[in-house]
Formats: sequence, C-alpha cells, structure tokens
Amino acid sequence: MIQIRDPVHGYIYANELEYNIIDSPVFQRLRKIRQLASAHLTYPGALHTRFEHCIGSMYLAKRAANHLKSQEIINEDMSNELSIAALLHDIGHGPFSHLFEEVLHEKGMTHENITDRIIRETEIADILSKFGINVKKFSNLCVGTSKNHPRFMNDIIAGFLSVDSMDYLLRDSYFSGVEYGKVDVHRIIDAYEIAGKKLAINKDSVYALESLMLARYEMFRAVYFHKSVRASAVMIIRAMNLSDEELHFTDLNNLDGFLQLTDERILYNISNINSNSENSKLAKKLVIDYTNRKMLKLVFEKIVLGKDKFSTKIFAQRKFRENLAEEIAEKSKIPKSHIFIDVSTATSVPTTSTKESFNEITVLLNKTRKKEFEITKATELPLMNAILGYMNIIRIYTTATYKKKLDTTVKGIFEKEVL
Amino acid sequence: MIQIRDPVHGYIYANELEYNIIDSPVFQRLRKIRQLASAHLTYPGALHTRFEHCIGSMYLAKRAANHLKSQEIINEDMSNELSIAALLHDIGHGPFSHLFEEVLHEKGMTHENITDRIIRETEIADILSKFGINVKKFSNLCVGTSKNHPRFMNDIIAGFLSVDSMDYLLRDSYFSGVEYGKVDVHRIIDAYEIAGKKLAINKDSVYALESLMLARYEMFRAVYFHKSVRASAVMIIRAMNLSDEELHFTDLNNLDGFLQLTDERILYNISNINSNSENSKLAKKLVIDYTNRKMLKLVFEKIVLGKDKFSTKIFAQRKFRENLAEEIAEKSKIPKSHIFIDVSTATSVPTTSTKESFNEITVLLNKTRKKEFEITKATELPLMNAILGYMNIIRIYTTATYKKKLDTTVKGIFEKEVL
Amino acid sequence: MIQIRDPVHGYIYANELEYNIIDSPVFQRLRKIRQLASAHLTYPGALHTRFEHCIGSMYLAKRAANHLKSQEIINEDMSNELSIAALLHDIGHGPFSHLFEEVLHEKGMTHENITDRIIRETEIADILSKFGINVKKFSNLCVGTSKNHPRFMNDIIAGFLSVDSMDYLLRDSYFSGVEYGKVDVHRIIDAYEIAGKKLAINKDSVYALESLMLARYEMFRAVYFHKSVRASAVMIIRAMNLSDEELHFTDLNNLDGFLQLTDERILYNISNINSNSENSKLAKKLVIDYTNRKMLKLVFEKIVLGKDKFSTKIFAQRKFRENLAEEIAEKSKIPKSHIFIDVSTATSVPTTSTKESFNEITVLLNKTRKKEFEITKATELPLMNAILGYMNIIRIYTTATYKKKLDTTVKGIFEKEVL
Amino acid sequence: MIQIRDPVHGYIYANELEYNIIDSPVFQRLRKIRQLASAHLTYPGALHTRFEHCIGSMYLAKRAANHLKSQEIINEDMSNELSIAALLHDIGHGPFSHLFEEVLHEKGMTHENITDRIIRETEIADILSKFGINVKKFSNLCVGTSKNHPRFMNDIIAGFLSVDSMDYLLRDSYFSGVEYGKVDVHRIIDAYEIAGKKLAINKDSVYALESLMLARYEMFRAVYFHKSVRASAVMIIRAMNLSDEELHFTDLNNLDGFLQLTDERILYNISNINSNSENSKLAKKLVIDYTNRKMLKLVFEKIVLGKDKFSTKIFAQRKFRENLAEEIAEKSKIPKSHIFIDVSTATSVPTTSTKESFNEITVLLNKTRKKEFEITKATELPLMNAILGYMNIIRIYTTATYKKKLDTTVKGIFEKEVL
Repeated sequence: MIQIRDPVHGYIYANELEYNIIDSPVFQRLRKIRQLASAHLTYPGALHTRFEHCIGSMYLAKRAANHLKSQEIINEDMSNELSIAALLHDIGHGPFSHLFEEVLHEKGMTHENITDRIIRETEIADILSKFGINVKKFSNLCVGTSKNHPRFMNDIIAGFLSVDSMDYLLRDSYFSGVEYGKVDVHRIIDAYEIAGKKLAINKDSVYALESLMLARYEMFRAVYFHKSVRASAVMIIRAMNLSDEELHFTDLNNLDGFLQLTDERILYNISNINSNSENSKLAKKLVIDYTNRKMLKLVFEKIVLGKDKFSTKIFAQRKFRENLAEEIAEKSKIPKSHIFIDVSTATSVPTTSTKESFNEITVLLNKTRKKEFEITKATELPLMNAILGYMNIIRIYTTATYKKKLDTTVKGIFEKEVL
Repeated sequence: MIQIRDPVHGYIYANELEYNIIDSPVFQRLRKIRQLASAHLTYPGALHTRFEHCIGSMYLAKRAANHLKSQEIINEDMSNELSIAALLHDIGHGPFSHLFEEVLHEKGMTHENITDRIIRETEIADILSKFGINVKKFSNLCVGTSKNHPRFMNDIIAGFLSVDSMDYLLRDSYFSGVEYGKVDVHRIIDAYEIAGKKLAINKDSVYALESLMLARYEMFRAVYFHKSVRASAVMIIRAMNLSDEELHFTDLNNLDGFLQLTDERILYNISNINSNSENSKLAKKLVIDYTNRKMLKLVFEKIVLGKDKFSTKIFAQRKFRENLAEEIAEKSKIPKSHIFIDVSTATSVPTTSTKESFNEITVLLNKTRKKEFEITKATELPLMNAILGYMNIIRIYTTATYKKKLDTTVKGIFEKEVL
Repeated sequence: MIQIRDPVHGYIYANELEYNIIDSPVFQRLRKIRQLASAHLTYPGALHTRFEHCIGSMYLAKRAANHLKSQEIINEDMSNELSIAALLHDIGHGPFSHLFEEVLHEKGMTHENITDRIIRETEIADILSKFGINVKKFSNLCVGTSKNHPRFMNDIIAGFLSVDSMDYLLRDSYFSGVEYGKVDVHRIIDAYEIAGKKLAINKDSVYALESLMLARYEMFRAVYFHKSVRASAVMIIRAMNLSDEELHFTDLNNLDGFLQLTDERILYNISNINSNSENSKLAKKLVIDYTNRKMLKLVFEKIVLGKDKFSTKIFAQRKFRENLAEEIAEKSKIPKSHIFIDVSTATSVPTTSTKESFNEITVLLNKTRKKEFEITKATELPLMNAILGYMNIIRIYTTATYKKKLDTTVKGIFEKEVL
Repeated sequence: MIQIRDPVHGYIYANELEYNIIDSPVFQRLRKIRQLASAHLTYPGALHTRFEHCIGSMYLAKRAANHLKSQEIINEDMSNELSIAALLHDIGHGPFSHLFEEVLHEKGMTHENITDRIIRETEIADILSKFGINVKKFSNLCVGTSKNHPRFMNDIIAGFLSVDSMDYLLRDSYFSGVEYGKVDVHRIIDAYEIAGKKLAINKDSVYALESLMLARYEMFRAVYFHKSVRASAVMIIRAMNLSDEELHFTDLNNLDGFLQLTDERILYNISNINSNSENSKLAKKLVIDYTNRKMLKLVFEKIVLGKDKFSTKIFAQRKFRENLAEEIAEKSKIPKSHIFIDVSTATSVPTTSTKESFNEITVLLNKTRKKEFEITKATELPLMNAILGYMNIIRIYTTATYKKKLDTTVKGIFEKEVL
C-alpha cells in the first residue's frame, strides 16, 4: 500500500498493481497533459493534470466499489477492475486533453481506440497480465463500453453519474478557485442502485443528482465555456488543425510518437515549424500569439435557448459553420482564416457524457411494493431539461487586427439571421 | 472599532454605533433565537442564531456599500444606514424565527410592524438618535420598505439579491455541514448595478445570479424543506398555534412580553401549561413529544410541478387545507388534530423574498451604446422559471400512533384527486 | 444504519446500538451542554455542544478501530466497544462542561464516577445489556480507566492521542472560526502503534504528533485561555460555587437531579435565587451581569515560563491563591469577593489529558532489527517541552467598579513578588 | 482594474500598472517556474508557480498597505510601491526556484542582483517609468534592501513577517493538500506596528506570530524538508551543478539567456547534452533518472538538536561536507559522485528569511505609559528558540545501485562520530 496526498480527497491508497501502473512512464506522461488545457491562462491556479485526475477517479471508484460490495452486488475481482478502469480511463488522452479530441472530431476521426491500444500494446498490458487481469476482456471497461462487464460497471466509469464526472468537477473547482462544482460525492455514491443492469440513483437522493447536474452546469458557465478560456482553446485547436499536415499529430498509427506528445511539446513543435505553407505559417502565428498571450477577441456571442433551424444546423454541421465563416469573410473582407466560429455544447467539454448518453444512462429507481421499478429518465425532470437546453453557446472570435472591422459586419449578418 | 471572529466571513469590524447596538439587550436576545428553528434535530451542527446572521449581514452590507461608494452612487451617511439596517433587519424575529411567522400568518396576522416598533420604542431608538440617525425616517429601511431611501437600498436589505439572502445561504450551509449554498458573494456584490432606482445585476455576471438562485434552491431541497426538518417545524407551529389562546404569544401589544420570548422559553411555557382545554393539552403533548424526539411521521409527499386547480388551491388557501384535513379525518376515522398538512413554498422559509418580490426586484442590466437599459425580468430566464416552479411541496404528517391507519386512507384520496 | 451529517467529519454512520444510545434522553441532554461553556460570548459561532462532540469522537474511534482491526490487533467486539466508549466518554459532563469540573475541583471533589454511575444506573445500562455488552466490565473504558481492557484501548478514549482530543480540536476550531486546531487526524490514526500494551505512535509520523501538540497549544492560546473567554468562565465558576450551598448543584447523590442540569437551567436557577446570604446574592449578581454581558475586567496577566517558588505555589495550591486574594483585598480596600484569581494550566481545559498523563501515555516506537522497541517519552522531545512549559497563565480580574482601584494595587504587589 | 481569481485569496484586483507588469513576457515567464521545484513528484497537486505566488504576495501587500495607510504611516505612493515590490520580489528567480539558488550558493555566487538587473534592464523598467516610478530608487525595495525606503517597507517585502512568507505558506499548503501552513494572515497584518522604523508586531498578537512560526515549521517538516522531496531536489541541484561547465546556466552576464531558462528547458537541455566529460554524463544520467522517477535512496538521516562541533561544521562549511563525502566514498568503495550529502536548514528553502534576518527583524512592541517601546527579539521567546533549533537535518542519499553497500558503511562512520 502506498499513500498519495491529494488536495481534493485527502489520502489516497494504492495497492501494488495500482502503484505499478501509476509508476509506469505511459501513465506518468499524464503529468504533462493539463486537465483544462489552456484554462490556466484565465484561472492561474488551474495547472492540474490528467495524472491527479485519474488517481482521484480511482479513489472514487474504490469508494463506489465498497458501496456495491457491501450490498453484495459485485465481488472482489469486479471491485479491483473498477478501480483500475477508473485509473486508466484517460490514459488515451492526447496533448491539451479535450482540445485534441476536438481536432480529431473536426477531422471526422475518433480517438475511441487509442485508449484501447495503449492498454493492449504498452507496458500497461504486461502489468495487468502479471496481476492476473485478462487484458483483452478488460480493456473496454476503461472507456465504458465493455460487453464483458455489466452495464452498470461501464456507467460507473463513463457517463453522467461516473466517478470521472465527480472527480473532475471537484478538482477543476478546487484548482480554478471558483465556488462552483462542489459535489457531495459520498451522498451520490451511497445512492447508487442497480436497475435492470444499469446504474441508477435512489429516489430519495434525486436532489443529489440534481446537485451534480447543477454543479456541472455552473462549471460549464463559469469555467469550461468561459469566453477567455474558449478564446485560448480555439487558438490551440486551430493551430493543431492547421499544422497537422506538416506535423502529423493525428497520425495515430505511430503509437510511440503519440505517447511523446505533451502540451509543451505541441507548442514547441508548432512554434518551430519551418514551412512556407499558408496553413503552417498561420498555425505558427497562433501559437506564438498564444505564448505571448495575444488572445483572440470576441465579436459575437449568443446563448441559444430554443431550437430553431439555424441553431440546430450550426451546432450539428461542420459544413454549415464553414459556410457561415465564408459568408462572413466575404462580407467583411477579412481572410476566412481569421474568423473563428466556436460552438460550445455539452460535447465540447472534458467528459464523455453527451446529452444522448445522459438521456440513456440515468434512471431513477423507485422500489414499489411489488418490487417493480419505476423508471424515470433524467431528462424528464423539468430542472434537468431546463439546464440541458441551456448549454449551447455560439461565439465568433477574430484576431485583434480585425476586431473592429468584424464587429459591424457580424451584427449585420446576425440581425438578419434572427439568432 | 471592535473585531468579531465569524466562521463564515472571517473578521468583522464594528464601529461604535454598531457595537452599541450589538451590545444592547434587545439585540443580544437574538442569541436565543436559532436561525433554523428546529433544524438542529436533523442537522446537529445547525445551532447558529439570528445574532450571528445579523452581524454577518451587516458585514456584507458594508461590502456592498463600499462597492456603491466607489462608484459614487451613495455617500458616507447612506453607507452607514445600509450597514445598520442590515444589522437590524431581523430584530423583530420571534421565537423559532420563521415558525413564529407561520403562526402569525395562519392567524391572518402579520409581524410587519414589530421590527418597526422595536426600533422606535426600545433602547435601539436612543442609540440611533445619539449617533445622529433620524429614527422615524430610518426604521422602514430595516425591512426594505422605506420611502425615504432609494429603492435599491431597500433591495440590498430585503429581497432576492439582498445581503440577508447571501448571508443565510452561506451560514446555514456552514453550520448544517452540507455542500450546498456556497455563494460567491463577492462576485455578486461587485456586479450590483442601479437601473432606474432599482437594484440590478450586470449582464456579465448573470451566471452569478443563477448561481445564487441554484444555491438557494439546493438549500431548500436539502435543508429548509427536508422532510424531517419540516416534521419538527410542523409540531412547533401547531403547538404555538394551539396554546396561543392560553399563553398569548401573538399578542404583540405587549412589546416587553414579546421581547422575553426565546426558543427555550416557548418550549418551557408550553410544557408547563396547566389547562383542561383540548387545544392546550394537545399543544403540551406536541412539545413533550418534540423534546423527546418522538417526531411526526410522513404519510404523503408530493412535489407539485405544474399548476392545476387543486395545487393552486392547496397552496394558496388555508380554508382549503382545513377542509382537506377534515375530509381525511372523516375517511380515516382519525382525529383531525392528528393530521398535519404542510405545504412548503418559497414563502414558508427564512426569507422575505417571495416569488412576487423576486419577480419585481431583480432585473438585468445591459448598458447599450445609447446608455439605455435593456431590462429583463429574472423570471424570464428559463433556468429561473424551472427552479421557481419546482419548490412547491405538499406533505401530510401524523403522529406515530396513526401512521399505519392514515397510510392507506391518504393514498385512496390522492389517487382520486389525481395529484 | 442511520446517517448523521456532521460539519466536521461529513457523514457519520451509527448502527442500531449506537443509535439507541444517541436517541436516549440521557444522551440527548448533551445537546444542552455547550462544548465551550461561555466561549460563544467571545466567539459567536462556538455554540456547539457535547452532543455533536461525542458523535464525532465515535466517528474517529471507528476509524481507529478499523486501523487496528486491519492489523489484527483487535477483534470486532473490541472495535464495537471502542466506538461506544467514545460515544459515552462525556456522558457524565455537568452544566457548562469543564467549568462544572472546576467547581467540583475547587471543592476538593471529583466527578470521576458520575460517568460510571450514569452508564450503570440509567437506561444506558439497559441498552448496552440488550446488545450484549457487560456493563460492569465495560463502563470504565468510557473514562479510560478500565482494567478489563488493554491499556491502549483506554489511551484511545482518553489522553493526549485520543479520539476525544482530536475531535475537540477540529470541532472547536470549526465553530469558533479560528485558523488553528487543524489536525490531520487520518495521519495520526494511521500512525497508531501498540508498544507494550500502550498506545504509541510510529516514528515516521512523529511530526504528526508534533502537529497535534501545536494545534492544541494554539487553541489554548487563541480560544480556551483567551482573556475574555476566561473572564466569562470565571464568573460562572464563582457563581456556581457561591450558590452551591443554596442550590446543591454538586450534590451528586441525586443523579436524576444532576441529569436535569443544563447550561440554561443553571443560569435560570441562580438568577431566580431568593436568599439573603451574601454568597447567594453575589452569585445572583454575577449571573445577571453575565447575562447582560457586564464582564469582569482584567487587571493583571502573566505568562509564567520558568518554575520559581511563587508560580509553583500559585498553580498548585488553592490555599495559596486564597491568601493572595486576601492580601490584595486588604491592600486595595476592595472586598475579597470582587477579586478573581484565575490560573490556567493544561488541567483547566476540556480534556482529561494532564501533563502527567501526557508524560505517561505517549511513547514513540521504533522497530529495530531485533524487534525491540526504542521508546521515547513525548516530553523528551524539545519542542514538546517548550510548549508544555508555556501554557501557564495567571490572571487577576475584578468587577468594572473596582477596575481602577485594583490596577495600581496589583502592580505594587507583583513588582515585589518578582513575578 | 482587472480581476484575477485566485484559489488562495479569492478575487485579486490589479490596477493598470500592475496589470502591465503581469502581462509582460518577463513576468509571464514565472508561469514556467514551479514554486516548489520538484515537490510535485511527492505531492502531485503542488504544480503551482512563482507567477501565482507573486500575484498573491501583491494582494497581501495591498492589504498591509491599507492597514498602514489607515494609520497614516504611509501615503498613497508608498502604498503603490509596496504592491509593486511584492509583485516583483521573485522576478529574479531562476529555473527550479530555490534549487537554482542552491547551485549558485554552492558555487559561492549570489543571485542577489539578478532581480535588480531584470527590473532595471528589461521592459519592466519601461513600464515602471511610464507610471512615474523612479526605477533606480525603487528596485532594491523588491528584495528588501532599499536604503531609499524605511526599513519596515523592506521588512514587509522580505523577512519573517513578510507578505512573501505568508503567501507561500498558504499557497504551498493549498496545492500540496496538507493540513499545515494555515496562517491567519489578516490577524498578522492587522497586528503590524512600526517600532523605530522596523516592522514589529503588537504584543496582543504575539500568538499570531507564534502561529506563523509554527505553520512555517510544520511546512518545513512535512513538505520542504520531506525526505522524498529533498531526494528529487538533490538530483536537480547536482545535475545543474555538474552540467554548468557545459551549459553555462550560471553565467548571468547574459540576461536574455537567463530569461529563457525554465524548469522544462533545464531538463531538456541537460538530457540532450552531448559530451564525454564525466560530469556531463552524470548530469545527464541524473536528469534521465529524475524523469523516469528513479529517485535517490536515503541511507542516513539525523535531526540535529544541539550544536556540537560536528554539526556546526557540517551545516556551515561546504568544504567539510566535501571531505565527509570523500571519506565515505573511500571507506565504502563507492564513487564519490554517487554520494549525496544534503543538509537542510532554514536557508535552504524558498524564503529569504535566514535565521539571522529573523533574529534581527522581528521585534515585539509594547506601548508603555511613557510611550516608550519595550522590545523583545523574537528569538528570546522560548517557543521560537525551540523551533528554530529544530530545523537542521542531515541526510545522505545514494543511487539505487549503491544503497545496500552504503547502508552499512554509513552506520559505521556515524556511530563513531556520535552524531
């Protein structure tokens, strides 16, 4: 047993298997991937990394496992697997965490199986095997998609009620120094129930579920979707995107190469790029501006409440955003490359919990006299719906030079569009 | 300058006038009126009193006054008045705080002018006069209804964005030990603006307003409306109500008598009542049960979401609740005196902020280029509406003896009522 | 299992036996005995009671029991006994907690066996028996003097490293709102070792022991021995002492009578005393002054560092203090009854841990290769000694009337005494 | 006015001058110098940097300035200078903060005037001048050695009671997640007095001074001098030392070069060194081991309490340590380069406060009737002395390979030395 002092949870204990994983270079690499990517430029304390977050998630998974063991729902082996899966759930994260995911996403790619490959192809596999874990059967549990484990185990690793969610809310709040994001994790874990193989929450604790929802919502508003936080994020995303043809970040065939990438390394590589392509030059400029904190300027912002045709399109379709950027570029006589359209929805944040998965996973359980379940989808709760429908933000940024010019053009366009 | 160590705000400084008020017996009396009445039976730490709360509100009022002074909106005298008004805003509270208000309310009376009388008729008046305050003009500011002061000063003392609200959320959270109720008071106070004499909040900080709203909502769910907290509250309310004809608590003509009443004194007086009236005997029984923690049992609970005819009636009309209790009594063959219908709405909690006042007071300000205001009522924000429409709870309690018997009857009735 | 929300430790779980004890009137009585007696007049938040403290101590005892169980040092039954003993360790506390002890002490009496009698003679005995605990063998464990249990179990309940100490430091700090008293209880409990039947602490965690020592020292300086806190304490002690011949508080033969005494009841009884004896009248005056916050005034204060003849006498001998008071009275022409000599040492605070017991109990363990112990007495650590020798304070108070008069006399006397 | 959200102090406000400094590249560079160098390998949360620390110190300096202004001790200009000086006090820190200082120290060099040069020779000078500050007269205030300002202003910037000390204790505690280091900064600042131009502390708050002392002591024991923290620190120090002849880190003539150095850059440069010199190769090995977390192993540890000849020498004389290492190398047949003697005293930590300066600076003030001062040196307080004499630790580390071999040799040597 080794002991780790964590500012969020206090002492965290790791057994030999866990410690071996933590001590491996593949895992130690997470020390160089900041949990909130560029947010520390806005919230100076937010320097924490995926490393601490993964260990914190493991802690909560143990807590959850104890709860389920005491009710004889899972056995010791399953308990261990939960703990390890939580520890490894972010092992596949690339540089700048979710920003890298956004880059992949924009390219129509997915990082789904990087995690899987890292677990199967690196020293992690050896460590797991040595301690008697069947790597092949186990690996998908780490991303919450295992068919070899009951659905609720997947739900505990990934999804709205997951230990991942709870840890990042608490941790991001602590290091950012905001008052939001305080979640009563012990109350929620103690309210875990199993309903038809799925993770559910006891009806008596529905307010704890709401509280988690509210904490998450507040962190989105105050931190994750903060306009300055997104300004810096957009710069990094665009710079990675533009330099990719030169630097091949998204070439995931080369796993070793991927495992070398850290936040600092990306900045270094892009700022040392030596190419005449327009894309590369712009990427380089963005990274240098980022380093010198010459941030993009906001010219338009809109919180979308209802669901009209326009907003549905702009959130769902990359093509539509491309066209809009082109239209703006044309009307304003500004190069399209200096127009940044940012749409923030629940999917563009550090969580696997999309509105869809939220809809599916969370259920409310009511043990009636006949031992039947009364299941309510979380989205049927009025509060949930109000909040969920309130996290869509459209923003347009530009470089400082074009701020003024764009200001007027954009207003003209959007008055017409009745946004 | 004296210094008071407060667990919630740290050091609080009081000038001579403030200290004289704090040190007066009328104010010291607040040490014996618990902020959350009977809630400490459920949350053992919640032993805090109106005394600390009033001092904490004064602290926040000073903070707010500094903000407004730095913008030259108020002068030094107004700043002092804000501080004193916050300090005195609860001076008229009776024993068991808001439970006493509920008793008055049930009797169709109001405590509105007790505060006013205490400020004008006790040593408080002398102290204020000595320090140059015109008591007559000043007193209504303490309850937020002064015509001699700008509207926004009243709003700072009473209402949704008031220093009172912010202090009680933080304080109740701290002493109850729950994770909820954490409000970023400094952010909110720094976002205070004045729009057309009313207190408003800067648009950039609308999320801080939401956060306050959410914190309040969570405290309602977890603490103020907690089913056990209400069970004990209902006992005290009923006991005071029933014994009033004997003990004349609500006879406010006798101000000195009123100023002797404390939580403990009420319990002592009722438990020593010596009368053969049914009401008095039941009051005595309830207080003895309360003291021995034989709490009422919950037989029915419903959170009312929409607004149908039935729920509108039950929340608004005392008569309707009386009739319902009678109907239940008849059908279940249980004495009506053992049936307790509790309806919890925003008005039945420790705040002067009703939904109505909330609706009126809070506005959002947007300084447009032409220096005009763009005003939005808080209730027009979707999140606000969702939450506001979610705080209405109907509960039926009974004494332990009748729990079983009532269980079935009640279900029968409410299935019919399509609640 | 029931769940209690505690601001200090979070959720605390109680099993059926524990809950039965907590719910008994004898235990509920602790809700009316404030942990820090009169300290809330100085630190307004310090309203907490022995009730919460006992539950918190139980929580820590469970934590300690788990640590010892995991090392197979104790079994399940011993674990349960530890938990119950911690819960009951303060059940014998009288009104105003340690102030009542000081009154007994001044009378040369001891409350040692009240706890024992309460456990054996009230419903507590019935509850314990019902759950299979041998009351006779068990009761002394609650005060840390059981011969039927290993020494270390007694040490965990009472003494310097006890769960009692750790809970009161954390709790008094939380409710007073001071920055001191933060103890890393988990670190200390995890460092618990057994050396020759005694409770010891692992050498690697000696700094955690120091930290506990320092936290305790700081709480003494800032809270327990604060000059205003002691001023109010001295008034209550004297008032109880003087009124005892009339009101018989210290007549412990009548256990039922003792169990009726609460802080409020003492104040009520003394302030309603109707007697012509000088003592009773002075007692009454003191309580009325206390209620109106007309506190005693400090005229002399000295922190005693070394150990000269004078200081040894003043701290050890009540008679010597009596004579000193008489001398002062004579020289200053002030009635002796208005002179209050207060000597604060480690024994006059809410702990059973005297310097003696500290000396005995705490040892440091070093597992050498030959599995022998290397034992160091805590007092041999230089830091410990510095602190221990630094907690002796002499103060002289008087009533406001005589403040000026006494000021000069006292200085004269003490210049001579070379204090 | 801009606003910075700080997890330690809440909102921090910066005026235009302050913001211009913060936004300059020279200041932004501090974002890449960790406050606690390598400590995050032991305390994963300790990722904070000099950047946040400097802003936090500025916050406390403003707080202190307000205290002194309200007493009309300083004027507005002096107040501004205090704030800027606190902001800039660490601008001269090199990579790995105090570890770089230790390297300079071992070379008999001093970084004293780097700060001065940075303030005079970079854009900082331009910013200061633009806002009307006389750079030449001002710069030394930033390191607490200005002759152009009263002594107490220097004391507020550097030394035991400085805002620097208080910020780092709070901040290091927060990010490490330990329970220690909680300092009541507001109490201390409010107790600031001026006695004969020096910074002093009001006698009534001497316990706050003690508390600061104790907090600092505990942080030393638990964090700064933690054996694993020092193990990693020793590796970095030695690696910088050994590679210096190749990489010229300590060549401070080239200020621009110095300003490029960050923690990451040092690691990168050393691990890419390409040289055949023994020193360079060992430096490279140490950095690679560091990166792979192959830490040095502890073979000997001793806390030195008294002051014998041996310990005085080992702490004071680098030459003596060299000789000791040689002796050990010879006796154990281990290369000297694998023996690491680490002596930790108050000077080897992130503070300018040496025991000497502590001795000089801190005084206790007692305003006697004749308005004379009664001054006590802090070191005359028994508690202070006990603690100060308790912070000297000698440790010997070696690489994993030689651990066993050295274990026995070292014991032999030190038994003889009667350490």
